[in-house]
Amino acid sequence: MEDTGPNRSARNGGLGLTNTLSSGDRIVSFLIGQFSLVWIDQQQSLNFNLNVIESEWGRGANLDVLASKLAADPSHSIKAVCIVHNETATGVTNNLAAVRKLLDEYGHPALVPVNGVSSICSLDLRMDEWGIDVALTGSQKAPSMPTRMGIVCASPKAMEAAKSAKSVRVFFDWNDYLKLYKMGTYWPYTPSIQLLHGLRTALDLFFEEGFDNVTARHSRLGKATRLAVEAWGLKNCTQEEWWFHLVLTALLWWFHLVLTALIIVKRAWTRYNLIMGLGLKKVAGKVFRIGHLGKLNDVLSLRNKKHFGVEMVLRDVGYPVKLGSGVAAAAAYLQNTIPMIPSRI
Amino acid sequence: MEDTGPNRSARNGGLGLTNTLSSGDRIVSFLIGQFSLVWIDQQQSLNFNLNVIESEWGRGANLDVLASKLAADPSHSIKAVCIVHNETATGVTNNLAAVRKLLDEYGHPALVPVNGVSSICSLDLRMDEWGIDVALTGSQKAPSMPTRMGIVCASPKAMEAAKSAKSVRVFFDWNDYLKLYKMGTYWPYTPSIQLLHGLRTALDLFFEEGFDNVTARHSRLGKATRLAVEAWGLKNCTQEEWWFHLVLTALLWWFHLVLTALIIVKRAWTRYNLIMGLGLKKVAGKVFRIGHLGKLNDVLSLRNKKHFGVEMVLRDVGYPVKLGSGVAAAAAYLQNTIPMIPSRI
Amino acid sequence: MEDTGPNRSARNGGLGLTNTLSSGDRIVSFLIGQFSLVWIDQQQSLNFNLNVIESEWGRGANLDVLASKLAADPSHSIKAVCIVHNETATGVTNNLAAVRKLLDEYGHPALVPVNGVSSICSLDLRMDEWGIDVALTGSQKAPSMPTRMGIVCASPKAMEAAKSAKSVRVFFDWNDYLKLYKMGTYWPYTPSIQLLHGLRTALDLFFEEGFDNVTARHSRLGKATRLAVEAWGLKNCTQEEWWFHLVLTALLWWFHLVLTALIIVKRAWTRYNLIMGLGLKKVAGKVFRIGHLGKLNDVLSLRNKKHFGVEMVLRDVGYPVKLGSGVAAAAAYLQNTIPMIPSRI
Amino acid sequence: MEDTGPNRSARNGGLGLTNTLSSGDRIVSFLIGQFSLVWIDQQQSLNFNLNVIESEWGRGANLDVLASKLAADPSHSIKAVCIVHNETATGVTNNLAAVRKLLDEYGHPALVPVNGVSSICSLDLRMDEWGIDVALTGSQKAPSMPTRMGIVCASPKAMEAAKSAKSVRVFFDWNDYLKLYKMGTYWPYTPSIQLLHGLRTALDLFFEEGFDNVTARHSRLGKATRLAVEAWGLKNCTQEEWWFHLVLTALLWWFHLVLTALIIVKRAWTRYNLIMGLGLKKVAGKVFRIGHLGKLNDVLSLRNKKHFGVEMVLRDVGYPVKLGSGVAAAAAYLQNTIPMIPSRI
Repeated sequence: MEDTGPNRSARNGGLGLTNTLSSGDRIVSFLIGQFSLVWIDQQQSLNFNLNVIESEWGRGANLDVLASKLAADPSHSIKAVCIVHNETATGVTNNLAAVRKLLDEYGHPALVPVNGVSSICSLDLRMDEWGIDVALTGSQKAPSMPTRMGIVCASPKAMEAAKSAKSVRVFFDWNDYLKLYKMGTYWPYTPSIQLLHGLRTALDLFFEEGFDNVTARHSRLGKATRLAVEAWGLKNCTQEEWWFHLVLTALLWWFHLVLTALIIVKRAWTRYNLIMGLGLKKVAGKVFRIGHLGKLNDVLSLRNKKHFGVEMVLRDVGYPVKLGSGVAAAAAYLQNTIPMIPSRI
Repeated sequence: MEDTGPNRSARNGGLGLTNTLSSGDRIVSFLIGQFSLVWIDQQQSLNFNLNVIESEWGRGANLDVLASKLAADPSHSIKAVCIVHNETATGVTNNLAAVRKLLDEYGHPALVPVNGVSSICSLDLRMDEWGIDVALTGSQKAPSMPTRMGIVCASPKAMEAAKSAKSVRVFFDWNDYLKLYKMGTYWPYTPSIQLLHGLRTALDLFFEEGFDNVTARHSRLGKATRLAVEAWGLKNCTQEEWWFHLVLTALLWWFHLVLTALIIVKRAWTRYNLIMGLGLKKVAGKVFRIGHLGKLNDVLSLRNKKHFGVEMVLRDVGYPVKLGSGVAAAAAYLQNTIPMIPSRI
Repeated sequence: MEDTGPNRSARNGGLGLTNTLSSGDRIVSFLIGQFSLVWIDQQQSLNFNLNVIESEWGRGANLDVLASKLAADPSHSIKAVCIVHNETATGVTNNLAAVRKLLDEYGHPALVPVNGVSSICSLDLRMDEWGIDVALTGSQKAPSMPTRMGIVCASPKAMEAAKSAKSVRVFFDWNDYLKLYKMGTYWPYTPSIQLLHGLRTALDLFFEEGFDNVTARHSRLGKATRLAVEAWGLKNCTQEEWWFHLVLTALLWWFHLVLTALIIVKRAWTRYNLIMGLGLKKVAGKVFRIGHLGKLNDVLSLRNKKHFGVEMVLRDVGYPVKLGSGVAAAAAYLQNTIPMIPSRI
Repeated sequence: MEDTGPNRSARNGGLGLTNTLSSGDRIVSFLIGQFSLVWIDQQQSLNFNLNVIESEWGRGANLDVLASKLAADPSHSIKAVCIVHNETATGVTNNLAAVRKLLDEYGHPALVPVNGVSSICSLDLRMDEWGIDVALTGSQKAPSMPTRMGIVCASPKAMEAAKSAKSVRVFFDWNDYLKLYKMGTYWPYTPSIQLLHGLRTALDLFFEEGFDNVTARHSRLGKATRLAVEAWGLKNCTQEEWWFHLVLTALLWWFHLVLTALIIVKRAWTRYNLIMGLGLKKVAGKVFRIGHLGKLNDVLSLRNKKHFGVEMVLRDVGYPVKLGSGVAAAAAYLQNTIPMIPSRI
């Protein structure tokens, strides 16, 4: 299915919910960082009966609290458990298989809508095996296309729920799409032919590389970046290894109270033409982010540019980084792990 | 402002309303064809208290009924008068200045949201002079860009209404845009840089041609097409001249009860690679449409292709059209009216 | 093989000759219009011993004269017979099979370099069957790509001749290409990757349509155009039917001594944004041309635009054309001959 | 002026010569590396009376020998002094001002054709001040456009020489271009509109950045790369500082007789998706090259990717490089020299 607007959780997330739920429905939602928060903001706007489970930012979803809520809900009043796969703001990847396992243990039928904006097509996400009901991302994320196309996948269970969901919605009603799809007309609105062709090509590239290779590649880039961070004497914002975010590394900036991460990000931009994300809200000023998501054809291209640039920026602001140290750490790891390119051997 | 989805009335129309009105608000809406109907469908979905004023399809908005409603509403319970500028399904252009005049006569403060999907940047539309509060179109219409960008313009009065409108909305809340715009960050979501650049260029082309020339050009194309229709012995679906739709001509197909317009449109597609629109709903099977909207750099290019093709299709289905007759009628008119291209003289 | 410059006969033609012939070699060349003339100009620049066989412009190659020259050349002093397949300036298509037949009758080993700029991939051209040794075209002709890529095909006999040809040449020496091709490096110079990908796609489109369908389509468009010309009371510049140029129609303008074809072409450009070619040199002022070459996905699109426009221009200059007459004549023919689009039935 | 083929010296170089010289003319040409050699190859093919002045590869043009030749030529039998500005194969930049000075000292009127393929729009090249008569480059070099357009600039003196030059040429005869240019028709052949628009934009970008900034940027990148090379314990192929090639660094590979530079370049390609140039001919197996030419919007982007990658490759083949050492050396230099981006401060 195609959605068509700004492809952030704030938007697609809403669609997944309005199509499957009704105003007043009880839902559980994990708050572990800025992008979870944006989603929760809309869940509030959409008038759901919202139970937020918050973790310290830098930690993953608190599944113990979920377990207790499920245990206390024999009547299945919880209609959905909303979870962000990768929390882009803190660099944490949640364990979706564990969420499924919990729901199964309690025989709980809640829907599982997943914000997979930065994970779909870069990390391992098993919609059927993990019982995910709605999964969404955007064309400008792993597919490396222009912005503008949201991609929403729905399970049969979600499609069934759409028949009776009563949320107010006039745009992207799944039922409209299905009706015209069955008529052979396909789209209730003018479709974006260009982006649909682009998506076809993006998928071809994924299949050609193989999804195992895609996730292995992102995993290598994440590991190399974390080694660089360590070499710089900085800390990963993500607090424990099993939450390491494989397509983004968030660095905790503890060095100097006055020199906030904002200064670092600004300098990278004004002097080195280098774009980094900031920590947001609770980790504002304390985190800056290095992304490594997408069709990096050249496994090196984007990454070490940033390592190299980050080292210069850190020196510029007075942090005692040894130039080349992060790059060296990343290189020592990558040198032994990057596979040969089969077609070129 | 930018919206970002399927750019049909069904979508943008909703945004104009959710940002300015609250659930339960009383609104008046004109039903004169399929695209008005789609908008009205959503107005119902959005739970407004809806007063529909219907005209026979092929006629414009019934302003007499509006006048009586305004006269009967001294307490100003009507919050908005929704009107489609061009009803694409029947080829009728409504008179927006007359709507403004009526509202002023009654001193009525209702908002005027206008669906200008097929009129903005092709027909004369005076937002300030006619007191239009919301006007919307899509990138793939007159701007002749790819689909994907909705364009929504709001009057100061609409912006004011947005502050208190209580419709449920999570996407494209004007307040979100305004907040970030004022912060210098501009967009609450990932913007579509490519389309924004495209819009810049599309506007440059309009300004270069001059809006008077743009509307004059569309007017010529409409007139030429109507003359062709007349030469074929067919009738314009639009019943009176003051409603003639300048960017589209809808033809009334009365020739043969069994041969519906569907057959004509299908044959044009399968044999002549020619795309025409169908009449919808109430005029289904009775109308087919010839569009003449957009950046037709060559005043001839799109138009006569269709005239030429339509003649062959009509003959194919047994209608006794004289080949060349429509083209001749259009040419006789255009020959004397197309202006020289100044830069080439 | 790829050439890379201005893709007109003036250029590729030279390459075919410098790679296969030596300065001073005796060659025969047919002069039947402007594009033959351009080629002959270069043959002179390249210092060949040149025998020109001229026909009245509007007629094809004079094969009787060729026969007598071959008969008088038992020692095979003639090294090449150069011929333009389609003379774009007059709308004449030469009969290449007849040239081959003559050479075979006399057992004459002369090379046959063919300027196929406007014929390759639009008309029937059988390189092996007709014993053509060099055939050349440009990316912007039938392949409908951007300009910049010349395409030169060489027979084994031409490749053999290249080994000993002594013409001065530093660019596009076939031997350089072959040497690197055999080394697996492919190109002696930086190749144009974009155009090579484009050519791949252009060829895919030809193969998908089928070459028989491609030539049939061009044949239909040519016939329809000639019928329009007849309906206007004008004459085809091409004097006899077997020379009819299937991708271009040249119209003989006899109407008015003062109103030259230049005025017609200029008016089409300044008033109707319509580009037509002029007759050149000997037919200057007496001929204007309507092209119908390339990937006209829509069989109608380009053609009737021009018919329609030409009628208006003719009226503008006072010629008593009946508006719609040419279009009607073309339509009457096309209506019965355009095949259904298989994938859409 | 536009040329249109493979844009290497092998090609454009020929054009500069055939338009200004006649077969048999005496010319002096410097041989300092592979790209000089390619040009000399064609000068031989074009039948000039050629005097080659060779330097050890890694050194610049031997101007002492030129001086003695000029001194011994009071009759001005030398018609041209051909020189490559940047010898891409060895990383040497010749001193063109010194060539001019010598010619002036001897009052010698020889033309000065310059192969500026990798220098124009990246290094300082003063056509008028240094009395350069022909300067040529390609669209895919500093302009960072697709391949396909050669750019040839000619001095008034070269234009004058073109009137009487007798070299055989049929393509890109300057006189053809000039004739049509004066007629207002501009091109003797179908021009490449797309590339001409691209060139316009490429030039706008250069002017916006300012040529002083462009050359300063390339100079920084060259210096940073040489510092990295030094840190790796390798030698620059360019033997003395005044010849340092500012848009390319050639590394002398002395480490191991069996491990040739070919192995390094192959490994970079098969494992790290990294493309480097090889030394050619006399320095084959002994040199590999790191390019830093073009519109590197991000001053870091291309460069450190290569540094980073080169270090891994060197380790892979057993060379005892310290990971991060080259990057650190480059960073230490760049950190203090990259200017702030004015529009972002």
